[in-house]
Amino acid sequence: MKKAALILGSDSDLDKAQGALDVFRDYGVPAEARILSAHRTPEEAAAFASSARENGFGVILAAAGMAAHLAGALAARTTLPVIGIPMGGGAFGGLDALLSTVQMPSGIPVATVAVNGAKNAAILAVEILALSDETLSEKLVSAREETHAAVLKKDALLRERIKGENA
Amino acid sequence: MKKAALILGSDSDLDKAQGALDVFRDYGVPAEARILSAHRTPEEAAAFASSARENGFGVILAAAGMAAHLAGALAARTTLPVIGIPMGGGAFGGLDALLSTVQMPSGIPVATVAVNGAKNAAILAVEILALSDETLSEKLVSAREETHAAVLKKDALLRERIKGENA
Amino acid sequence: MKKAALILGSDSDLDKAQGALDVFRDYGVPAEARILSAHRTPEEAAAFASSARENGFGVILAAAGMAAHLAGALAARTTLPVIGIPMGGGAFGGLDALLSTVQMPSGIPVATVAVNGAKNAAILAVEILALSDETLSEKLVSAREETHAAVLKKDALLRERIKGENA
Amino acid sequence: MKKAALILGSDSDLDKAQGALDVFRDYGVPAEARILSAHRTPEEAAAFASSARENGFGVILAAAGMAAHLAGALAARTTLPVIGIPMGGGAFGGLDALLSTVQMPSGIPVATVAVNGAKNAAILAVEILALSDETLSEKLVSAREETHAAVLKKDALLRERIKGENA
Amino acid sequence: MKKAALILGSDSDLDKAQGALDVFRDYGVPAEARILSAHRTPEEAAAFASSARENGFGVILAAAGMAAHLAGALAARTTLPVIGIPMGGGAFGGLDALLSTVQMPSGIPVATVAVNGAKNAAILAVEILALSDETLSEKLVSAREETHAAVLKKDALLRERIKGENA
Amino acid sequence: MKKAALILGSDSDLDKAQGALDVFRDYGVPAEARILSAHRTPEEAAAFASSARENGFGVILAAAGMAAHLAGALAARTTLPVIGIPMGGGAFGGLDALLSTVQMPSGIPVATVAVNGAKNAAILAVEILALSDETLSEKLVSAREETHAAVLKKDALLRERIKGENA
Amino acid sequence: MKKAALILGSDSDLDKAQGALDVFRDYGVPAEARILSAHRTPEEAAAFASSARENGFGVILAAAGMAAHLAGALAARTTLPVIGIPMGGGAFGGLDALLSTVQMPSGIPVATVAVNGAKNAAILAVEILALSDETLSEKLVSAREETHAAVLKKDALLRERIKGENA
Amino acid sequence: MKKAALILGSDSDLDKAQGALDVFRDYGVPAEARILSAHRTPEEAAAFASSARENGFGVILAAAGMAAHLAGALAARTTLPVIGIPMGGGAFGGLDALLSTVQMPSGIPVATVAVNGAKNAAILAVEILALSDETLSEKLVSAREETHAAVLKKDALLRERIKGENA
Repeated sequence: MKKAALILGSDSDLDKAQGALDVFRDYGVPAEARILSAHRTPEEAAAFASSARENGFGVILAAAGMAAHLAGALAARTTLPVIGIPMGGGAFGGLDALLSTVQMPSGIPVATVAVNGAKNAAILAVEILALSDETLSEKLVSAREETHAAVLKKDALLRERIKGENA
Repeated sequence: MKKAALILGSDSDLDKAQGALDVFRDYGVPAEARILSAHRTPEEAAAFASSARENGFGVILAAAGMAAHLAGALAARTTLPVIGIPMGGGAFGGLDALLSTVQMPSGIPVATVAVNGAKNAAILAVEILALSDETLSEKLVSAREETHAAVLKKDALLRERIKGENA
Repeated sequence: MKKAALILGSDSDLDKAQGALDVFRDYGVPAEARILSAHRTPEEAAAFASSARENGFGVILAAAGMAAHLAGALAARTTLPVIGIPMGGGAFGGLDALLSTVQMPSGIPVATVAVNGAKNAAILAVEILALSDETLSEKLVSAREETHAAVLKKDALLRERIKGENA
Repeated sequence: MKKAALILGSDSDLDKAQGALDVFRDYGVPAEARILSAHRTPEEAAAFASSARENGFGVILAAAGMAAHLAGALAARTTLPVIGIPMGGGAFGGLDALLSTVQMPSGIPVATVAVNGAKNAAILAVEILALSDETLSEKLVSAREETHAAVLKKDALLRERIKGENA
Repeated sequence: MKKAALILGSDSDLDKAQGALDVFRDYGVPAEARILSAHRTPEEAAAFASSARENGFGVILAAAGMAAHLAGALAARTTLPVIGIPMGGGAFGGLDALLSTVQMPSGIPVATVAVNGAKNAAILAVEILALSDETLSEKLVSAREETHAAVLKKDALLRERIKGENA
Repeated sequence: MKKAALILGSDSDLDKAQGALDVFRDYGVPAEARILSAHRTPEEAAAFASSARENGFGVILAAAGMAAHLAGALAARTTLPVIGIPMGGGAFGGLDALLSTVQMPSGIPVATVAVNGAKNAAILAVEILALSDETLSEKLVSAREETHAAVLKKDALLRERIKGENA
Repeated sequence: MKKAALILGSDSDLDKAQGALDVFRDYGVPAEARILSAHRTPEEAAAFASSARENGFGVILAAAGMAAHLAGALAARTTLPVIGIPMGGGAFGGLDALLSTVQMPSGIPVATVAVNGAKNAAILAVEILALSDETLSEKLVSAREETHAAVLKKDALLRERIKGENA
Repeated sequence: MKKAALILGSDSDLDKAQGALDVFRDYGVPAEARILSAHRTPEEAAAFASSARENGFGVILAAAGMAAHLAGALAARTTLPVIGIPMGGGAFGGLDALLSTVQMPSGIPVATVAVNGAKNAAILAVEILALSDETLSEKLVSAREETHAAVLKKDALLRERIKGENA
């Protein structure tokens, strides 16, 4: 199976992005995590992206805040799908990171998820890898069914509670 | 090869989204285009998404404006990767469509591209399909090389022009 | 009397939306509360809305945050008035939820209230139901008079306090 | 049948709000239109709202731009449902009108629709009046079915066109 | 001397607006404070503004948050200068109150100060009253000189501290 | 009578600010207009403000766009009331000018009006000058009455038109 | 004298950035212009920045729109001062370009000017180069004096015009 | 060596701006810090800027919040490069300070850094001074290399941790 990469622009983002690694573990997707900065270690970031396909990666997640160039800088050097995770916080709550990540010019897309959406980024990566992996695909359906059942259960509990209060 | 779907929330978005169909044609990716509204034909939209995988689709593009629910509504009914294209215009220039598309809750990601980024959405779809299609992958690399060469040529022309002006 | 429904996109919104249930109790409006997600339980949400009129509901409140599709998804399947409550918080403080709720396309309106305005949503629902219920209508007038009197009382206290300080 | 009122803050808004009057005519809802400004004719606006219920109105639409106080000023003097239409344009494209209309304090709700959403405001008014008018209710369902059919037809045309291009 | 009025839309704004009363006391400007809501006690608010001039007021301050209509509602009923104080907080941090206060239509101005700028609103009121009161005018100049001296003193302290660190 | 000053940051703002001069002429307020830039002629701007009171001015209007420092720079050098007019246009439609004008620090208020609100700025100036000028005060009341009558007339015309269409 | 570089992310920005080249010509600063994209020709952009100092450049201007990574990408590879010019237009009018350019992480600054501020970027570059070039420094002062005189002249013309109208 | 100046609009900004002084100390750049307000001590601020060049300064940093006029006011009186630091906080999180600082009119640039970016402002100042100081230039390269090495070390630690977890 192709590997997933989680690239962090700073080690301070690790806690917020941990959810992505948890998703990969749950789905059994081999994943590697790196701290590679578009601004502080640009050559290493470029080298990682340029060789990612031949190194067995199928999808790259990039989490960065503020003027979040990381996802775009990686996407510029690979034709693998790159998923951008705008990290929130700071003076603009994450609007700077969102716009810096999603507003890519023609030719170099970044698949952007919600601000601080590390978990969803990983699920999207699994959806992409699942296109050629039937087992992953089935796991995705199961996870959806579990989520579905969990919401139904909470719904039932609420209905009972309300009924009790009205009785 | 798996097919790509381009779903439009309204036929008024067709012109702005045509670039996506052009990309699919250039890459030889079989594609279907539909007008399916999350609000005006919600059952048909839901039915399309629910059966998209078994109907041979590998990726779904959804283009919608304002309170752009289309991509999220489709993503809620499939585990295929769904790419959201926020359509610009109106009172907020596309900020409403961008936030409505990208800020998805945990569990149901939408891969969001730039406002009016139909062409990039299709390139992202090709990148996804290329993971299991070596020919597509090579075409992507060629396209990047062509873009690269085109920029270098414009750069050379500019340098000559400036040199001429300075001479 | 027709019933009111309060639909929550997530059980995490229950505390913030409790004010709506309190209003319904105060006014003696029969109400039901449900957790139904536009993304995690879309079929159940659709089924609820489709059958809401025949099940005795007269108005539907929908509270959701981020890319808040819930109110729009319900409105797409019923011609009952649907009141949207954008839930605040997150990276954009509720702007995402507000725009996702209010910027509905032509043909499918959502009656949107302030961010976190659960109580006002319920009062709006009572105003709607009161059109064919004289008792409710009188209760609304009484409530306004009580609010009016309470502000006058606070005004009087402030004036006295200031007078005391100036004396 | 109860009447609908369309209150304009300025006669310059008449063109953008005409869609609301068209909807009322199509549905056979008796409607009156007024120009009443929260700032230039505040007493007349207040008097209208205070006596609207006894004058046979069931719902009030208020369209205003910039610091759009009109809907709130009317809502402060009636317990009828008041629907606010933020008018777009100017330096902020309508954000000022949207926030001035929707962010009402606790106790005095305004049912807000999209910027320039006059037509949707009228449909929302019809939905409200239809709660006690079976004919209106059936017309709403018919209108939805027509919209639904129209989208399906456009969808079919697009599919044929694409098929033709691919053939 | 003409009096100043401080009108609060809610008693919850009293703490944030207290600075205005302090300024009036410091300058010896007779001031009254009222809680009058544009939405909850609209008649009382209107009555206050309509008779403010004949009751000896020369300037009116209005502090309100969210869809802050208070200043505009008062300005609509008097030709006295009305100073609007947008109160911050909530989902939009005060942007809603600022736009609702400042974006007044032609003919009915509101002199708007910064979000939570109660103190500055009172100083502006003093500047206005000082046009026909030489004593007030001199006090304003003295206050500026005190502020000026205070900044110079802090500047001197900082320079000494830095010099000490560099020594 | 004290004079009013209209200071423009650039001659390109003259057309948009002409409405202020028209208001002063209509009310018979002696007014002077100047082009004085906070950035290009800072000494002249400072000198004007410093001597404005002794030169017979009672109120200063300042119109500027983008990083609109003009009103604040003048207010820093006078205790006369300074009215700021944020000029719209450019990349942010006037939000930059509004925030640069209104968000003044404690001690130095600027009375800010709507973006491009030159006419309202002049009316506010007249309201201020009218505090010690009974004739001006009466003219303000007359102007309000004219506006009031004009709206009532438009209202009557609209009602007739609608009645005609319904007949 | 050290050279200035003007790097454009796209040849479509050339017209808007031409003002920078005009400034350099006026001041006699040797300048080169390049089209180098952070996303389409990332290696060439990196190579330019890495060798800029040894190639005789003293300052680099970078003009780009949308998710404007260009200035940051160059700054990551040189310790020369890099001046970022956010290019306006598109769905967000330039807010995306501004935030992508200015919100750089600690350690890698970009000196950002106004949206579309190419001319000011060049003047800033001249100010920087003038620190070790007395002639440039004098030219800057002369240019300021010319601007100053031009504003004074426009001011005089306006004063005369107004005097004529009042006469 | 030319000196750097750090001008604070208020002593309350000292803590947030301390990082700039630390950078100057680390690089051995002689620096002075002042509290000079564009609004409270405008003459002193103007005098500082007017004489900064002859007093041995080569670059000026200006840190201010809200309607942050300080950097622009200084830039208006010197042709030295002025670096603006928008201070965050308040109702708009720093957007007001950013726009007030960066959106300068043609002719008077301010080199703006990120909100609260005092440290980066100082590094930018060092980059400017380093153009004519080889030692500073080498220190900048060393600092980049240290940062580079620090990120690589954190990257190595993360990779080991992940490897350990996967083992």
